[in-house]
Amino acid sequence: MLTSHLKRIYRNPWGLFTDLYQITMGYGYWKSGIADRQSVFHLFYRKNPFGNPYTIAAGLDLVIDLLQNYRFSVDDIQYLGSLKASDGKALFSESFLNYLQRMQFSCTISAMPEGSVAFPHQPLVRVEGPLIQAQLIETALLNIINFSTLITTKAARVCQAARGESVLEFGLRRAQGVDGGLTASRSAFIGGCDGTSNVLAGRLYGIPVKGTHAHSWVMCFDDELEAFAAYAEAMPANCIFLVDTYDTLEGIRNAITVGHRLREKGHDLLGIRLDSGDLGELSKIARHMLDDSGFTETAIVASNDLDEYQINSLKEQGAKISVWGVGTRLVTAYEQAALGGVYKLAAITDEHGKWDYRVKLSEQEIKVSNPGRLQVRRYYDKQENPIGDQIYNLDFSNPPAKVINFTNNQQNYLDPYKSEDLLVPVFEEGRLVYASPYLEDIRRYCQLEQQRFASLHSEKNDYVNGLEPALYALKLSLIQSVKV
Amino acid sequence: MLTSHLKRIYRNPWGLFTDLYQITMGYGYWKSGIADRQSVFHLFYRKNPFGNPYTIAAGLDLVIDLLQNYRFSVDDIQYLGSLKASDGKALFSESFLNYLQRMQFSCTISAMPEGSVAFPHQPLVRVEGPLIQAQLIETALLNIINFSTLITTKAARVCQAARGESVLEFGLRRAQGVDGGLTASRSAFIGGCDGTSNVLAGRLYGIPVKGTHAHSWVMCFDDELEAFAAYAEAMPANCIFLVDTYDTLEGIRNAITVGHRLREKGHDLLGIRLDSGDLGELSKIARHMLDDSGFTETAIVASNDLDEYQINSLKEQGAKISVWGVGTRLVTAYEQAALGGVYKLAAITDEHGKWDYRVKLSEQEIKVSNPGRLQVRRYYDKQENPIGDQIYNLDFSNPPAKVINFTNNQQNYLDPYKSEDLLVPVFEEGRLVYASPYLEDIRRYCQLEQQRFASLHSEKNDYVNGLEPALYALKLSLIQSVKV
Repeated sequence: MLTSHLKRIYRNPWGLFTDLYQITMGYGYWKSGIADRQSVFHLFYRKNPFGNPYTIAAGLDLVIDLLQNYRFSVDDIQYLGSLKASDGKALFSESFLNYLQRMQFSCTISAMPEGSVAFPHQPLVRVEGPLIQAQLIETALLNIINFSTLITTKAARVCQAARGESVLEFGLRRAQGVDGGLTASRSAFIGGCDGTSNVLAGRLYGIPVKGTHAHSWVMCFDDELEAFAAYAEAMPANCIFLVDTYDTLEGIRNAITVGHRLREKGHDLLGIRLDSGDLGELSKIARHMLDDSGFTETAIVASNDLDEYQINSLKEQGAKISVWGVGTRLVTAYEQAALGGVYKLAAITDEHGKWDYRVKLSEQEIKVSNPGRLQVRRYYDKQENPIGDQIYNLDFSNPPAKVINFTNNQQNYLDPYKSEDLLVPVFEEGRLVYASPYLEDIRRYCQLEQQRFASLHSEKNDYVNGLEPALYALKLSLIQSVKV
Repeated sequence: MLTSHLKRIYRNPWGLFTDLYQITMGYGYWKSGIADRQSVFHLFYRKNPFGNPYTIAAGLDLVIDLLQNYRFSVDDIQYLGSLKASDGKALFSESFLNYLQRMQFSCTISAMPEGSVAFPHQPLVRVEGPLIQAQLIETALLNIINFSTLITTKAARVCQAARGESVLEFGLRRAQGVDGGLTASRSAFIGGCDGTSNVLAGRLYGIPVKGTHAHSWVMCFDDELEAFAAYAEAMPANCIFLVDTYDTLEGIRNAITVGHRLREKGHDLLGIRLDSGDLGELSKIARHMLDDSGFTETAIVASNDLDEYQINSLKEQGAKISVWGVGTRLVTAYEQAALGGVYKLAAITDEHGKWDYRVKLSEQEIKVSNPGRLQVRRYYDKQENPIGDQIYNLDFSNPPAKVINFTNNQQNYLDPYKSEDLLVPVFEEGRLVYASPYLEDIRRYCQLEQQRFASLHSEKNDYVNGLEPALYALKLSLIQSVKV
């Protein structure tokens, strides 16, 4: 029951949008008397998806909205009260449930603005606050940031492949659920798509919506010419004819015939759409046919399981496609359907309120987490080109422009002209202090960021990303102390 | 802004949850005077995902809820009124928008019950009704049925690999959005999972919720033994210790130490969880260590990017794992993140109210759609084993038990003892006539269906699925008539 569920989700202000173990841990912290200890968690990922040299951080605005409505309703508390442990007794005590219901969100959160280029191990979000709260919100933050960042990064790749030509997102029918579709449309727009077929995303996010007709339109009429003519009669200023319902070349001829009629009435044939067959060859033939008939401005739209690889390949074949409709493979990030973002404890105060730094060990070095209260500093040269990123500990003094690179553990000295800290304040003790930009502005910022890092798509990508030396030393010493 | 969006989605009763081209086509139908012609559309897919011999249909209950709330709000209509065509004029006329706002959902819908085993080309849903309405709901139906069917099928595969052992779904943090997580949890439960970590899914769908603690719990204490002891103190009847935060073997020893203390207080060590390293080897060592210490009933839970292939491989290695925690690869169907379900027009009435059957051609034979008002009949032998499926046209007389098989175009004569029609009435002229089963009952039915079709997992899978001969002849004649 989808609608009633969304209704209930709305009425139900997000406290339960989590994994059960966050709540059992919360209960444990509370019973152990450490629920209100200050803690620091970072949300980061370890490996760029799709072999891309970076990701584009996204989803912050959705996180903000969630956290502004973060609490447990009476019904939520009743539900939690109904859960049983293995002995048949209540899993949670009454007084803990009262505590949860009265809990006020009071974390301090910094994050990379949406549209920022990010690299592995860099915190996309830093959460500081009472241990129990920082723990409880883990799942929601991961769910939102993982998916938005994944799709925004994929969309940027698709749009880069289209090299300035228009990309439209058509994926709603194959998206992973209602919100899978909505969030994908939003992320695709940030990443560079020009519009979406998703009308709800159009209304809720202000994304331009696009669409004309499907095969079923053509099939409702006795023949294709009649179908195109009827469409032109109904919407003369929105004519992009899908030409492959029966026979593509015949379809193009029918589109041209109706195009001439449109011109007689002061309109034009905006485009034709190819949705099957050899898109490269068909687009060249279509371009000739259209040009020969005087429709040199008529766009050729292509769709059919496209992604950045297909687009690149079609470009190399000299395809005459001017608008790319991309669906399934974009909105599900089909090639790699999840970003493996994680959320790790990096510091907790001791009983005297002093920070204790923490690492999570692993047999794989890349999986050892970084301790501290972390910030990411990006260094630029005089021409404002980024020359390296540094993760440093806010508790240390101002960091030198030196980085121990993750890829080789070698120290790099950067010779910067200026620098910028990437994580910006979002919440201060539960109070929102960040004004989310308009989606259009996020999209523009994302394009600027892609330009800044365009050279990383070359084969030799040696962009520096690593730890500030004192932080590196802290990490090593903690690993030693834990191992002993 | 997620919450306000969900709030708006709720207030906004689903009319806009569609692709723009459905609405432009709707406008075209309305202007062409054919909006209220009766039409038939089928939702089906062409190829089984994951190389599975079938899919398990799911999502119907979500579709029902959506269609019961299907209309356009005043705000929706205002938004549609703001859209412009290429000439800068309104895309839709005022009188069409008034028509949309007054439109009452009146389609007749039949569908396969959730949990049913389905095969390629079989309608999972048949929609009959006014052309404009059947067209407008396409996107929502595809979005919901595609995703639910995909994940339910994946979950069945994962649970089959676990061969009766418990599988828990832990995927929320990597799911594709809020609803991507919720719907995945629901589908995973139907497919055979025993529980979920997703608390919201627990509350909304009544799915058992499971969870104990993460690495961060262990990292909050000075050492692991202290962490396990504190957890046992807080929740003695919910102890499954995650043992790999620092060193797995040491972790198992610490769990056993705390297990002895639990027993002194009348509780037990329910389990340990392995989340990294060689799960096969570690589980064998853990089993020995636990058994040697008298913890023969303590479960060994494993997680870490598991799917049916990993589970099979671990089983073959003789892993001593008793509970499988499956996340990312299940809830995103990582191996194949979308089901390519489509929705095709198959009949429309002419001006005299007589059915005109339609096919969509394609260069690929498999992509040619089937005409008619279709039903799926499943035939059984005396032992109630299914022996073949037949798609037939409701407008023809009672079909003979003959099938032209999709795989080879050969005619098969089935010698049935009995038969059953798979599509059941759901809506009659907009009125709900179907009582959705409880989720538990859907899950049980799904298990029965899997048992019925268990033999199809053998290498020689020659289950018959095809068209009734008269329908096959109709299809051929329509293809000929369109091609001429």
